[in-house]
Amino acid sequence: MPHDIRILTETQLRGAVRLDMGTVQIVERAFAALARGAVIMPPILSMDLEKVGGEFDVKTAYIDGLERFALKASTGFFGNAALGLPSLGGLMMVFSAKTGQVEAVLLDNGYLTDIRTAAAGGVAAMHLAPVGVRTAGVLGTGLQARLQLQAAHLARPFEAALIWGRDPAKAESCAREMTDTLGVPVHAITDPADLVARCQLVITTTPSRTPLITADMLHPCLHITAMGSDAEGKTEISPEALVAADAYYCDRVSQCRSLGELRGAVEAGLWDRPDPPELGQVIMGELEGRTEEEQVTICDLTGTGAQDTAIATHVMDVLGSADIGTMIRT
Amino acid sequence: MPHDIRILTETQLRGAVRLDMGTVQIVERAFAALARGAVIMPPILSMDLEKVGGEFDVKTAYIDGLERFALKASTGFFGNAALGLPSLGGLMMVFSAKTGQVEAVLLDNGYLTDIRTAAAGGVAAMHLAPVGVRTAGVLGTGLQARLQLQAAHLARPFEAALIWGRDPAKAESCAREMTDTLGVPVHAITDPADLVARCQLVITTTPSRTPLITADMLHPCLHITAMGSDAEGKTEISPEALVAADAYYCDRVSQCRSLGELRGAVEAGLWDRPDPPELGQVIMGELEGRTEEEQVTICDLTGTGAQDTAIATHVMDVLGSADIGTMIRT
Repeated sequence: MPHDIRILTETQLRGAVRLDMGTVQIVERAFAALARGAVIMPPILSMDLEKVGGEFDVKTAYIDGLERFALKASTGFFGNAALGLPSLGGLMMVFSAKTGQVEAVLLDNGYLTDIRTAAAGGVAAMHLAPVGVRTAGVLGTGLQARLQLQAAHLARPFEAALIWGRDPAKAESCAREMTDTLGVPVHAITDPADLVARCQLVITTTPSRTPLITADMLHPCLHITAMGSDAEGKTEISPEALVAADAYYCDRVSQCRSLGELRGAVEAGLWDRPDPPELGQVIMGELEGRTEEEQVTICDLTGTGAQDTAIATHVMDVLGSADIGTMIRT
Repeated sequence: MPHDIRILTETQLRGAVRLDMGTVQIVERAFAALARGAVIMPPILSMDLEKVGGEFDVKTAYIDGLERFALKASTGFFGNAALGLPSLGGLMMVFSAKTGQVEAVLLDNGYLTDIRTAAAGGVAAMHLAPVGVRTAGVLGTGLQARLQLQAAHLARPFEAALIWGRDPAKAESCAREMTDTLGVPVHAITDPADLVARCQLVITTTPSRTPLITADMLHPCLHITAMGSDAEGKTEISPEALVAADAYYCDRVSQCRSLGELRGAVEAGLWDRPDPPELGQVIMGELEGRTEEEQVTICDLTGTGAQDTAIATHVMDVLGSADIGTMIRT
């Protein structure tokens, strides 16, 4: 029986959703659902295409109560820059949770991933950062560094921000741009230790393979969200720093064990505790988050299929029956 | 940088490829590539959506030398019949193997899966069935029973065929249809043991959870292709029959261990041998297939992402720059 499938382009999707408090709340609900066991989320399907310098990751999740679920494919092909093409890409597919029928194909080139990843940073800041964040800092100068600062500013409207990157010129240009975007002074800084020392909220967004934040940099009244490490071999926080924090939270423990910062701490033999708590448990009120302004907290975000299903479902809700997209009958 | 993505419907795909010797050879090459280690194929991503009576499976594979790779999502929602909708569905996405860019979305509703699954049966028959197949038989009366008989007829042009199904009326109607399709007499039969006794090539296509073929039914000059079991709990061949055959082949050992007939034999403690050979090794000439007309051989097909990438790439090659499909710029 033929049915219509809606095809949406990146431009149409950019018009439909953006990073705001609404999307932060959408992603917050996805984390809560994860914590209360209302999500079926298989392990990430992944191909490392070494010969062609490519990575391919596929995520999905079914969330109880949502009318749809998404399947997302993300591509990273690192020779693309030389061809004048973006390195990252991908798309999402939306299925009916009642019938399994394909409802939509979201040709977003990774846009929705960017938004839902930044929104998760906003959720972490909202629930774990000190109330009194005056200065926020970000390690990294890419798109996610920019978006994470925006999300952090939604959750904790800081007075100033600092940016560090390996390339000082990129940090300078990112700082200028973010000063305009956020309407608060944003400065580039050349020493990550100096950045951490001056911030109450730090987000790490790099593909680093050696820790950028070490235990000696931790100080009272500090929250760190580490979202850069999403693959074996990547790390931004030293194992010693991870265990020195008052509390360390995962988006999903099973993923942080293999892809996130937890892997390094376990491998170093420093993680001799039970499984760390998940962010969703704090949202649900099952566990306490920050209990004292002076604490040091760390949140490790590897990215979950639940976020993808949440943002894709949100897109479909927002667009509703609006005459946007191309309908294909099949 | 915007690029064009081709959207193809089931009708357009049906016009582009069908089950013929060409598609059998395409799938044969995919099995050969698997055997020579030229394929990156992660484990199947799977969600069992018990609450809504649904299954969701995702497969992919990268094949060295092909310009594209596919990602396939298959849905099975078993309450759909009551809604007048097909139970099975899904789609494929095609990516450039050089840049990762999405090239096409194949809205096939499972059509390409049907074809590539039947083609694998053809490959198995071509390499493992006795040369002198006079009568072929199929257990099951669904679409795949029909397609498997067609594929078997391509590989071994038999003189007659038999069909068994739990519902005799469906078997009768399937037999009438296949008599027309194949141009040879096809009869329904009420006893699976009788069917096996009278055939040199048997294909099992059911979702059975108890074995339909037992060791006592095996006889000289027999090949069985078991393609029904593709999930834990399903089985069509008894463990005793599996080990009693002269040779047992897998499409992919790791998958047959968890989803195919091998699982039952291992669980019963009857599989005390090294890993069984894979079909691709026979195609490559690394291992002998059938060496004597009198032998009993069994081939276990669980379905591989390599087949999906092969058929999807074939579709793209066939369509080339023809003005078929809808181009979406994103």
